[in-house]
Amino acid sequence: MIIKQLNIGIIGLGTVGTGVIETLEQKTKILKKKYNLNINILGISAKNKNKKRGFNIKKYNWYDNPLDIIEIPNINIIVELIGGSSGLALKIAKKTLTKKKHLITANKALLAVYGKQLSKTAKKNDVNICYEAAVAGAIPIINILENRMLSENITNICGILNGTCNYILSKMDEENLNFETALKNAQNEGFAESNPFDDISGNDSAYKLVILTNLIFSSNFKIKDVYIEGITRVSNIDLEMANKLGYKILLLGISNIKNKVIQLRVHPCLVSQSSLLAKVKNELNAVITDGDMSGKNFFIGKGAGKKPTAASIISDIISFDNSKKRKLSNTMEKEATFKKANMLERKGKFYLRMAVLDKPGVLADITSYFKKKKISISSMFQLENKISGYVQLIFVTHNILEKQLILTIKKIEKIDKVKTKVNLIRIENNL
Amino acid sequence: MIIKQLNIGIIGLGTVGTGVIETLEQKTKILKKKYNLNINILGISAKNKNKKRGFNIKKYNWYDNPLDIIEIPNINIIVELIGGSSGLALKIAKKTLTKKKHLITANKALLAVYGKQLSKTAKKNDVNICYEAAVAGAIPIINILENRMLSENITNICGILNGTCNYILSKMDEENLNFETALKNAQNEGFAESNPFDDISGNDSAYKLVILTNLIFSSNFKIKDVYIEGITRVSNIDLEMANKLGYKILLLGISNIKNKVIQLRVHPCLVSQSSLLAKVKNELNAVITDGDMSGKNFFIGKGAGKKPTAASIISDIISFDNSKKRKLSNTMEKEATFKKANMLERKGKFYLRMAVLDKPGVLADITSYFKKKKISISSMFQLENKISGYVQLIFVTHNILEKQLILTIKKIEKIDKVKTKVNLIRIENNL
Repeated sequence: MIIKQLNIGIIGLGTVGTGVIETLEQKTKILKKKYNLNINILGISAKNKNKKRGFNIKKYNWYDNPLDIIEIPNINIIVELIGGSSGLALKIAKKTLTKKKHLITANKALLAVYGKQLSKTAKKNDVNICYEAAVAGAIPIINILENRMLSENITNICGILNGTCNYILSKMDEENLNFETALKNAQNEGFAESNPFDDISGNDSAYKLVILTNLIFSSNFKIKDVYIEGITRVSNIDLEMANKLGYKILLLGISNIKNKVIQLRVHPCLVSQSSLLAKVKNELNAVITDGDMSGKNFFIGKGAGKKPTAASIISDIISFDNSKKRKLSNTMEKEATFKKANMLERKGKFYLRMAVLDKPGVLADITSYFKKKKISISSMFQLENKISGYVQLIFVTHNILEKQLILTIKKIEKIDKVKTKVNLIRIENNL
Repeated sequence: MIIKQLNIGIIGLGTVGTGVIETLEQKTKILKKKYNLNINILGISAKNKNKKRGFNIKKYNWYDNPLDIIEIPNINIIVELIGGSSGLALKIAKKTLTKKKHLITANKALLAVYGKQLSKTAKKNDVNICYEAAVAGAIPIINILENRMLSENITNICGILNGTCNYILSKMDEENLNFETALKNAQNEGFAESNPFDDISGNDSAYKLVILTNLIFSSNFKIKDVYIEGITRVSNIDLEMANKLGYKILLLGISNIKNKVIQLRVHPCLVSQSSLLAKVKNELNAVITDGDMSGKNFFIGKGAGKKPTAASIISDIISFDNSKKRKLSNTMEKEATFKKANMLERKGKFYLRMAVLDKPGVLADITSYFKKKKISISSMFQLENKISGYVQLIFVTHNILEKQLILTIKKIEKIDKVKTKVNLIRIENNL
C-alpha cells in the first residue's frame, strides 16, 4: 500500500492553528491507517514566534515571512488562519492560489469580501479554496451545500451563526445576568474575543451569511447588502417578556429569496419556544436550510472553539483530493444577479417596548396612533415594576409592513410622555 | 463547455423511484446549467408496468427483466429502489457491481445484511455504492460521515431513525390518540407502509443503525447484534407520565463504544424535554454524533417521503464522480473487530409502570424488593384513575445495572397483587 504524502504549510498559530497542529500530532497514526495518508507540516509561521503554545515549535520549520512558506516547492496546501478581511491574509490567499496551491482558510471576513474574486483566481489556476471552518465551526454546512442538496432549490437559509451572541443571550435569559456580565463570562470561557465588536455588532454573523448566500445562490453579495443589527439593544426585560409570550430571543442571520429578490439580514428575533432553534443554547450554532425537495433541514453543533474548528480544517485537508470537482469554484464564479430586498418592505409581526410616564392618557395616545395607521395589536402588557421611574409598555403586533410600523413608531416617540426610543424586535415565524 | 452525459437505469418505480424521475424531468434545465450535466435515463423497470404513476413511462425504455438494464453498455449507474434484504435486490446489486457500474440504493435492509460483502465487490471492481437515501432520508448523514468528521473519534451515534414511529409517538402524545388510530393516520398521510411491521417493531431503525455503526467503526455488525424493542408497549399513560416527569418518549437507535466494546440498541427511551431531540416531532428524523473533536452534532430533517428521498438519490447521482475516493469502500472492507456489549450490563435510570390491585400492603411488598436489591427510587407515583380496575404504579429509579433491575422485576411480577408485566422504559440521559 502506497502511503500518500500531503505537504502543508500553516500560517497563523492562535487557538485554531495550534489546535490543528496538536490534533495532527496526536492523530498521526490513526489518520495514516484510515486514509493511507501522511500529513507533513513543511512550514509554520505566525506574528509572534515566542508566544507560549501547546506544541513545540522547534519540531517545525519556522518562517518569519509567511509568504515564503508558499514558495516551498512540494507544498500542496496552505492553511491560512491569521484572519482579517484584507492585508496579509489577502496577500497569502492570492499568492497561494496563483502559485497553484490549494487554500484552506477559516477567514470569514476575507471570504465575505473577496470570496468571488479569490474563487475566480482558484478556478483559473485549477486549485481549490476550502473553508468549512469559516462558517459555523464544526457544522459541515459548506460541504453539505457544495456536495449535497444538489437538486434542492433552497429558498431560505437561516441560522444562529455567532456563538458569542448566542452564549450571551442564553446566559442573560437563563441566569438573568446583565449584558456586561454575560459578555465577561463569554470572554472568560473563551467564547468571545477580547475585542468583541465583530461578534456583538452582528458583523461576524453577516460575514457568514454572505458566504452561505453567495454559495447557495451563486450571487456576489457584500456585507453592505446585509441589514445588520447586533444584540446590544436586547435587555433582560425583553428576554423575560419574550418568555412570557412564548418566545426566545436569538440573533439570527437570514437570507431568503422570492421572485429573484433576496433579503439578507442579521438581527435579534423572537422565535417560538416550540421551534428547535429555541433549544440551541450557549455557544452552539445552528443552520436551517429550507428547500423545495427536503423542506427544512436543521444542522446544529459547536460554532467555535479550538477542537471543533480544527476538526473542520483537518477534514478539508484530508478530503482536498476529493474536492477537485467541488461545486463552489464553479458556482462562485458564474455570477447570478439578484435584486436586494429592502427591509422596509418586509412584512411581519413585531415586539415593541417603550418606557412611558405613569400619567393618565398615555396608553390612549399611543394606541390612537396604532388605530390611525391600522396597526393591529395582538397583545399588550404593562409591567408592574417601573424602570428608572418609567412604566414599561410592551406591544405585539399582527402582521404589518415594516415601513408602516416605523412611521408610526416615529410619531409615538414624539409623544412627550414616551421617554425612550421604542425597542423593536422582529418576530420570526415559520422556524 | 462540454456537457457531461451521465447514463442511468432505474429499477423500482414506487414512491421514491417515481419521485426521482419526476424531479429529473422537472429539473433537467437547471441541473444542466448548474453542473454541466445531462442525466439520461436509459432504462426503467418495476414489478408492475401498468400501475398508474406520476410520469409517462412511454418516454422511457421499459425492461421487463430489470437485470437486462445492467447490460446496457454505456450505462454508468444503476439506481436500485425495489427494496428487500435479498432476492432480486441482491442479484441486481451484485450484477451492477461486477459489471463495473456504480450502484445507488435506498435499500437499508440489503445494506444492513450484505453491506460488507457488497462493498468488497465494489472495491474489487473499482466502483462505488452510494446509499445516502437508505438512512434518514434527506439528512446527508452518510456523506457527512464519509467526507467530514475525518479526524473525529466518534464514540456515540444516536438517532430517531424511523419517521413512522416518531409520527405515531408524537400523535399519541400531543393529540392523545391511541396507538391504532395514530398508526392509521400515519398510513393515511403516507408516513407508514400498509404493513408497518418493520417500522413499529424497531427493525427498520436497526437496519439503519447497523449501517451507520459499520460505516463509523469499520465494523461488520449484523441485525442480530442489535438489541431491538419496538414501540407497541408504549401506552398513552406512559407518554403522559413522561411529560409529568419532564421527559418525552422516543424510539432511538443508539450505538456507542467504550473500551472497544460496542453497544447497539433500538428501543423506546425517555429523553429530557430540555434536549433538542424532544423537539423532533412527527415524521422528522434526527441523528446525533458525539466525538472527541466536535462534541455533539445534531442533524435533523425529513426521514422519508417522495421528494426528500429523491433529493438524496439525485445528490448521489450528480456527485458520483466525486465519490470515487469515498471513504466507505475503503473503510467498510477493512474490517475492525469489536466486542458486542450485553444489554444486561448497561447501567442507567429506568421508568417502570405496573398495574396492581387496590389492596393494602401492595406498595410495601413492591418497595421491599427494591430495598432488598438496593435499588434506589427517585420518584414514585400512583395514578388516580384506575385502568381496567387496576391501580397504576410508576417508579423512576436512580442509576442501576439493568441485570439487577430485571431480576427484581421478575420477583415483583410474581407478587399476586401485581396484575401485569412491568412496563420498563429506559431513561437516556446526556442527549
